[in-house]
Amino acid sequence: MNYKLVFHILGMILRVEAVLMLPAAVIGLATGQDGSAFLLSAGITLAVGQALVMLPGKNMKMQARDGFAAVALSWIVLSLFGALPYVFSGVLPNYADAVFETVSGFTTTGATVFTFMEGQPLGVLFWRAQTQWMGGMGVLVLALALVPKLGEGSVYLMRAESPGPIKSKLTPRVRDTAKILYSIYIGLTAAEVLCLRLAGMPWFDAVIHAFTTISTGGFSVKNASIAAYNSLAIEWIIIVFMFLSGINFALLYFALCRNFKAVFQSEELRSYTLMTVTASGLIVLNLVLHASWALDARTVTDSVFQVVTLMTTTGYMTYDYVLWPTFSQVILVLVMFAGACAGSTAGGIKQIRVVLLVKNLRREVQRILHPRVVTTLKSDGDRVDEPILSGISLFFFAYILLLLAGTLVVAWDDVGFTAAFTASLTCISNVGPAFDVLGPTGNFFALSNVSKIFLSINMLLGRLEIMPLLLLLFPSLWKKR
Amino acid sequence: MNYKLVFHILGMILRVEAVLMLPAAVIGLATGQDGSAFLLSAGITLAVGQALVMLPGKNMKMQARDGFAAVALSWIVLSLFGALPYVFSGVLPNYADAVFETVSGFTTTGATVFTFMEGQPLGVLFWRAQTQWMGGMGVLVLALALVPKLGEGSVYLMRAESPGPIKSKLTPRVRDTAKILYSIYIGLTAAEVLCLRLAGMPWFDAVIHAFTTISTGGFSVKNASIAAYNSLAIEWIIIVFMFLSGINFALLYFALCRNFKAVFQSEELRSYTLMTVTASGLIVLNLVLHASWALDARTVTDSVFQVVTLMTTTGYMTYDYVLWPTFSQVILVLVMFAGACAGSTAGGIKQIRVVLLVKNLRREVQRILHPRVVTTLKSDGDRVDEPILSGISLFFFAYILLLLAGTLVVAWDDVGFTAAFTASLTCISNVGPAFDVLGPTGNFFALSNVSKIFLSINMLLGRLEIMPLLLLLFPSLWKKR
Repeated sequence: MNYKLVFHILGMILRVEAVLMLPAAVIGLATGQDGSAFLLSAGITLAVGQALVMLPGKNMKMQARDGFAAVALSWIVLSLFGALPYVFSGVLPNYADAVFETVSGFTTTGATVFTFMEGQPLGVLFWRAQTQWMGGMGVLVLALALVPKLGEGSVYLMRAESPGPIKSKLTPRVRDTAKILYSIYIGLTAAEVLCLRLAGMPWFDAVIHAFTTISTGGFSVKNASIAAYNSLAIEWIIIVFMFLSGINFALLYFALCRNFKAVFQSEELRSYTLMTVTASGLIVLNLVLHASWALDARTVTDSVFQVVTLMTTTGYMTYDYVLWPTFSQVILVLVMFAGACAGSTAGGIKQIRVVLLVKNLRREVQRILHPRVVTTLKSDGDRVDEPILSGISLFFFAYILLLLAGTLVVAWDDVGFTAAFTASLTCISNVGPAFDVLGPTGNFFALSNVSKIFLSINMLLGRLEIMPLLLLLFPSLWKKR
Repeated sequence: MNYKLVFHILGMILRVEAVLMLPAAVIGLATGQDGSAFLLSAGITLAVGQALVMLPGKNMKMQARDGFAAVALSWIVLSLFGALPYVFSGVLPNYADAVFETVSGFTTTGATVFTFMEGQPLGVLFWRAQTQWMGGMGVLVLALALVPKLGEGSVYLMRAESPGPIKSKLTPRVRDTAKILYSIYIGLTAAEVLCLRLAGMPWFDAVIHAFTTISTGGFSVKNASIAAYNSLAIEWIIIVFMFLSGINFALLYFALCRNFKAVFQSEELRSYTLMTVTASGLIVLNLVLHASWALDARTVTDSVFQVVTLMTTTGYMTYDYVLWPTFSQVILVLVMFAGACAGSTAGGIKQIRVVLLVKNLRREVQRILHPRVVTTLKSDGDRVDEPILSGISLFFFAYILLLLAGTLVVAWDDVGFTAAFTASLTCISNVGPAFDVLGPTGNFFALSNVSKIFLSINMLLGRLEIMPLLLLLFPSLWKKR
C-alpha cells in the first residue's frame, strides 16, 4: 500500500468532513443548543485531517489496491470522527452508540439507537440527516468533484465507492462525472424540499426528509416517521422521490439529455419497476383477503410506500408492517434483499446483479441441454464478460455469508431468529428498520455493544459492496510499497 | 428428449419400487393390519411399470439431457406411486399429505405430516423408513447395481442422482461403483442395527432407525424421536453413525482399502469435522452461560446430537431445541445450510461447495491486490476447473432463490417468518424439522396443500441438487429427438 497517498486522501476527506460539520454548528448556535459540540468536533477533525495532509512525501501514483484501501479506510475514519458531535453534545454518551448512528447515517442505512426523536437538539437532527446526504452519493465522489489534484488515480476511488458491478462512464474525466452526479443529486433534493413544503411540511422537516429521501437513508425527525404527518400527498411525493433515487443516476442523466432510448432499453430499470409493482400488488392482495384491511387509498398507499421505502433501502414508515400477515412481511424481506438499481443511492444486492444471476443460471441449465454451444451473456445489448459474472456470483455468496454471520452475532442478544436475521439483513442492505422487536417502531438501542459494532461493520460492507473492506484483512495489502 | 429411453427407465424404476413394497406387505399381512393396501399399491405400480417397459422402440442411446430428465422424472413418478399405500391404508387420506410424506421419505428429509407415531400400522412405519433407505443412496443407483442393461449412458444417471459438484469415480464401470457404494451402505446399516440392539433397542425399532440414520433421513417410530429411549448409549451410537453417513462414501471406501492418505488429505472431511466440533462447542458454551443448563453429559450429548443430526440433515431429536436461546438456534440453522459432505447421503449445500466458495472468494479479493496474477484453485491437490467453480456459485444462488421462494409460499399460511423460512430451508436441505411452530415437536400437517406441494418440490430440488428439475422447465428439453 502506498501509505503516503492513502494518508493524504484520509486527511483531505477529514478536512471536508470538518467543513461539513459547520452548518450543524450554526444551527446549534442559532438555537442556543449544542453549537459548541459541533465546533469542537470540527476543530479536532480539521486538526487531524490537516496533520495527515501535511505528512511529508510525494509519491502520488495510485494503484487499484490503494484506491480500494483509501475508500475503505476513509469510511471508517469518517464514521469515527463523525460520531464525535453525538458524544460531545451528550445525546449519545456511549461511543459505540454514536459510531453506530454515524455509520448508519453515512451508509444511508437509517437504523437508529435513538429511542425518541421529538425534542432532540435541531443541530443533532440536522447533522444526522446530513450524514445520510453526504454518504448517499459518496463522500469521496464529492471530494473528487471539489479537489482536482488526484488525477488519473481517482478512477479507482470512484470505482470502489460507487455501487454496482458495471460502472458507467458518463464522461471521459472522472471529475466531470462526479460533478454531473452531484448536480442531479442537488437538483432532486431541492425539488423534493419544494414539493414537501407545498404539501404542508414545515421547512426544517422538508429539508431533513429531502436529505434522507434522495440519499435513500430514512432518518426522520419524528418517532412515527412519515406516518406522523398523516398526509397522502406527502406520502406520494416521498414515494416518487424514493423511486427516482433508486434509479441509476446515469439513466437520470440520459433522461435529462433526452436520450430516452437508453432509459427504455435498461433491463435493470424494467426489473426494478416490475418488482415494485408486483410486490405492492401482492401485499394489497394479501391485506385485502385478510379481512382486517379494506381496499382503499390508505391500504394501497401503505403497501406501495412500504415496498418502495424498503426496496430503495430508505426505511421510512407509514404503517408498522410488523402487524401485517407473514406473507406481506416476507415480500418486504425479499425486496430488502434485492434493493434498487446500481449507480443509485440505494443499497441491497442491486437489481442488475439479480437480473444477471438469473440469466447466468438459465445459461447454466441450458449447458446441459446443449453441451457444445458456447453462449455469451448480454445486458442492455452489451456483452458481459465472464470475470464480471463470476464476480457477481461471489459477491452474492459473500453477501449471504456476512448476512448469516451478522445474524449469529446479534443472536447472542437472544432477540429471536426473525429479529436477528432481519437486523443483519437491514444493516448489510442499508435499509434501516428490521422486523419483530427491531421493527419500524423499535430501535437498536437495547442491543449489546458487540452487536452494534458488528452491525456497523455490516453496514459499511453493504455500502462499499464488500470487496474494499475484505481487502483490509489481507496482510499483503499492508506491505509498504 | 429420447422419450422411448426415458419411459423405459421410468418403467424399470417402477418395477423395482413395486418389488420393494413387498416387505411392508408381508409385515402388514403378518400383523393382520394393512397388507392389502401394499399389495394393491405394488400391483398398480408393477402394472404401470411393466406397460412403460414394454412400449415399443429400440433407440437406447443416452445423452446428458436424457439422463437428467430420466432422473428428475423418476423421482417424481416414484413419489406419486410410493404415496399410494398411505392413501389405500387410510392413514393419510389426503393425497397431498401422502405425497408430502413420500417425497420427505425418498429425499431423506424426514419432515412429517403424521401428528402421532405410536400406534400406526407397522407396515406403514416400515415402508416410511424404507423410502428413506431407498432414497439415501439413490434408487437409480440401486437400479444400476441390479440392471446391467443401460450400458455407457448410465454414467449420466449416476451423475444426475448422486450429490456433489465433483464426481469421484471409484471404478471405471458405473455398475461396479454402484455395487461398492451399496455394499458399504448395507454394511453400515447392518452394523448400526446390531449396535442399537445391543444398547437395548427392540429389533423393529433398531432396523427402522438404522434405515433412517444411514440414509440421514430422520423418520422415527416415536413421537419424541430418539428422546423416547432416554439412553445416552443409544444417542452416541446414532451420533457416530450419522457422522459416518455424512462422509463421502468414496472416502469410506478408501478407508476400507486402507488408503488412509486420501482420507486425511480430504479438505472436505476436515471442514466437516471442524464445523461439527465448533458448532457443538459454541452451543454448549451458550447453554452453560445461559444458567438454565448445567455442564453435564446430558447437555453435551444434546448439543452434539442436535448439531450432528441437523448438519448431516438427518433430523432426529433428543431435545426440543426451539427452547434453546436464539444463538444456539442460529448455529443449528447455519449447519442446516452447510450440510455434510458431497457423495454422502446427506443434503444441504455440502461442505465441499462451502470450502470452494470461500477459496474462490478469497481469490477474487486477491485479484484486486495482484491484478496481473492468474491463479488456479485446488482442492485436495487437484486443480478445479473454472466451469465447476462457476457452476457451484450458481448452484448457491439457485439454492437461496428457491429457499426464499419456498419461504414466500409457506408464509401465505401465516405461520410467522421464522417458521416459514426454516420450513423452506429444512425441506430444500432435506433435514426434516424446522423451527418455531414447525420445530421438532411440531409437524407439517396444518400447512395448506399448496405449501405441502411446494415444499415437496423443494425437497426434490434439494435431493437432486436443483439442475435436473430446473431442466424440466425448458421447452427445448421436451422436443422429440
